Amino acid sequence: MREVAIVGVGMTPFGELWDLSLRDLIVASSLKAMDDAKVDTVDSIYVGAMSSGLFNNQEHLASVAADYLGMVGVPATRCESACISGAVALKAAYLDVASGYSDIVLVTGVEKMTDVSGDKAVAGLSTASDDEFESYQGMTFPGLYAMIARAHMEKYGTTRRQLSLVSVKNHNNALKNPYAQFKLKMTPEAVESSVMVADPLHIMDCSPISDGAASVIIAPLDIVKERFKDHRIVKVLGLGHATGSIALHTRPDITNLDAVEKAGERAYKYAEVAPSDIQFAEVHDCFTIAEICELEALGFCAKGEGGKMTERGDTMPDGKLPVNVSGGLKAKGHPVGATGVAQIIEVTEQIRGDAGDRQLKDVNIGMAQNLGGSGGSSIVTILKGE
Amino acid sequence: MREVAIVGVGMTPFGELWDLSLRDLIVASSLKAMDDAKVDTVDSIYVGAMSSGLFNNQEHLASVAADYLGMVGVPATRCESACISGAVALKAAYLDVASGYSDIVLVTGVEKMTDVSGDKAVAGLSTASDDEFESYQGMTFPGLYAMIARAHMEKYGTTRRQLSLVSVKNHNNALKNPYAQFKLKMTPEAVESSVMVADPLHIMDCSPISDGAASVIIAPLDIVKERFKDHRIVKVLGLGHATGSIALHTRPDITNLDAVEKAGERAYKYAEVAPSDIQFAEVHDCFTIAEICELEALGFCAKGEGGKMTERGDTMPDGKLPVNVSGGLKAKGHPVGATGVAQIIEVTEQIRGDAGDRQLKDVNIGMAQNLGGSGGSSIVTILKGE
Repeated sequence: MREVAIVGVGMTPFGELWDLSLRDLIVASSLKAMDDAKVDTVDSIYVGAMSSGLFNNQEHLASVAADYLGMVGVPATRCESACISGAVALKAAYLDVASGYSDIVLVTGVEKMTDVSGDKAVAGLSTASDDEFESYQGMTFPGLYAMIARAHMEKYGTTRRQLSLVSVKNHNNALKNPYAQFKLKMTPEAVESSVMVADPLHIMDCSPISDGAASVIIAPLDIVKERFKDHRIVKVLGLGHATGSIALHTRPDITNLDAVEKAGERAYKYAEVAPSDIQFAEVHDCFTIAEICELEALGFCAKGEGGKMTERGDTMPDGKLPVNVSGGLKAKGHPVGATGVAQIIEVTEQIRGDAGDRQLKDVNIGMAQNLGGSGGSSIVTILKGE
Repeated sequence: MREVAIVGVGMTPFGELWDLSLRDLIVASSLKAMDDAKVDTVDSIYVGAMSSGLFNNQEHLASVAADYLGMVGVPATRCESACISGAVALKAAYLDVASGYSDIVLVTGVEKMTDVSGDKAVAGLSTASDDEFESYQGMTFPGLYAMIARAHMEKYGTTRRQLSLVSVKNHNNALKNPYAQFKLKMTPEAVESSVMVADPLHIMDCSPISDGAASVIIAPLDIVKERFKDHRIVKVLGLGHATGSIALHTRPDITNLDAVEKAGERAYKYAEVAPSDIQFAEVHDCFTIAEICELEALGFCAKGEGGKMTERGDTMPDGKLPVNVSGGLKAKGHPVGATGVAQIIEVTEQIRGDAGDRQLKDVNIGMAQNLGGSGGSSIVTILKGE
């Protein structure tokens, strides 16, 4: 397999983007990444999107991307795995380059969720759960994660305040991210007095409905060293992918995100690193409890210690493992298909030293962890500066 | 890149399968392919499906597949490109194996279209066209292909009878296919007296709404030679993928399927063969006119000669290039995401000598050509027996 590096990144702001259509978002972020890489065409395109059918009446989205980017003819594939649609698109692109089939490849994650009403957006998102056993019965994601949170509290003594601290950290991190959907100075009291969505989760525990797109350009490391000499090279050191039970009721322990644990183990093995080698991480905080479970599943702390690790401040920008310096899904926003790619962008920019006001000091190896549904799939990607 | 071979195939019957759910279809065809390959697990799963969101309220479909196949944990990705969703899934799986990342990989194409009413199925299918310029304006696929047919008749003198002969051939071929949706002895008069859908296309020019799934197992050639010694080896000799304009109005000439032409050129180049080396083909006859345009785009005849080639009987099972011996989409059925994989199965079975009553004599190299939307994407795959 060829080694693969990231040579260009670009994204739109995340938010309620009323004046940009689905295809506008794809074009805007793709062109930014191509500008950043200084390429004017690519050999192949991958689009990550969860449900452009339900949200925008548009399947066949990768061909729309090729067409509206002025690259008719270029092979284009859409990949989907609910909230890890961006990461599966990156993985497919990575294998395309690693195999030697393509050299310069564009990956764009996108979701335009505000074209439909809020209830239709929630119903659309629910198709990431098990239709027969969950969504058809009326279950939505806040309900699923509320059950996980409640079980985590019961089993490990995780507190309401620890959940709040995830939201507080991520919102306060987002104050330094110009692309973030929300710029709100957050306090635990504000989280806990916000409207209850599904006990124990308040609305300030939940990531929002968002529009946005994020793109990266990847290429084989040998070509990058030859053709992209003035780029700070960030290479894909390891990538692990795993599925988990699609529904909660078939899992042995709903507090354990098995897919994250397996994907993490595979990524560490591939990259030949340990959790202690990771200097910072973007993890999938679709709900505050998810970040806590992920810290555990990724081996950053023992089982049940995610809340305490948060409370100690270890995951703060000045902590021993900064987590979601970008603001995470909670505050940066969560246009579903874009999220996995946006995480890769944050890690790349931090390693490059391009992260502006939120730049971490002396980081060279970071992780992006993307989660599908209530844990039905996960991809963990480890990036390293050359 | 590692060479890749097909070591297992399996499919469900195509049709209105009222007693099988979406996940039942995936499991049934996947297990058949695994039985055929004599494997009890795989390293990775790819699912091709166009719109399980709109048809079945179920995205995150690859994780459903892993779960219901009893393979929770195995990485699983869904790929989509409208009617070539099956072929893009196969391509992604092919690159996964070719790269060296995975060894034994399952590819399942599926669509369960009868869970929704006919008008919702048509609306769902329309999301494969350009939403802003076509489907939102009320255009459906019979209308788009009717314009292509009319233009082809005007430019090249293609006749109504030539269109009918595509349908007659494919329906009569399907009489020998136990998995085909329709078993109807067809005549030109029956086609031409069937109900008009979009002038000049009658319903007997149109492929149906179908349920079904089709699966293949692929593996690297060196492992196949070692571990699958009693298998008749069919290898992927070449694979070409291209996009075309998503909407008709931006194409220089709507009678020319540019995506098919480019995908074909790429596949021939990759495989180091010429059109004259292809002994038989499965092509994407979603409408009769599509088969005629594809014969031309793939270089099997000159531009404008597809109708005449059909009328001469060249594409009959005993002709110089048998086309759609399986019955094609027209008669075998067209569960959208399954089609690209089912085409690969037909070509594989013919090369293996497993095609039963419809077995062609002495064939060792065949083509599968899958088409997305009205020509927004195409993949051409060339298979060869070792």
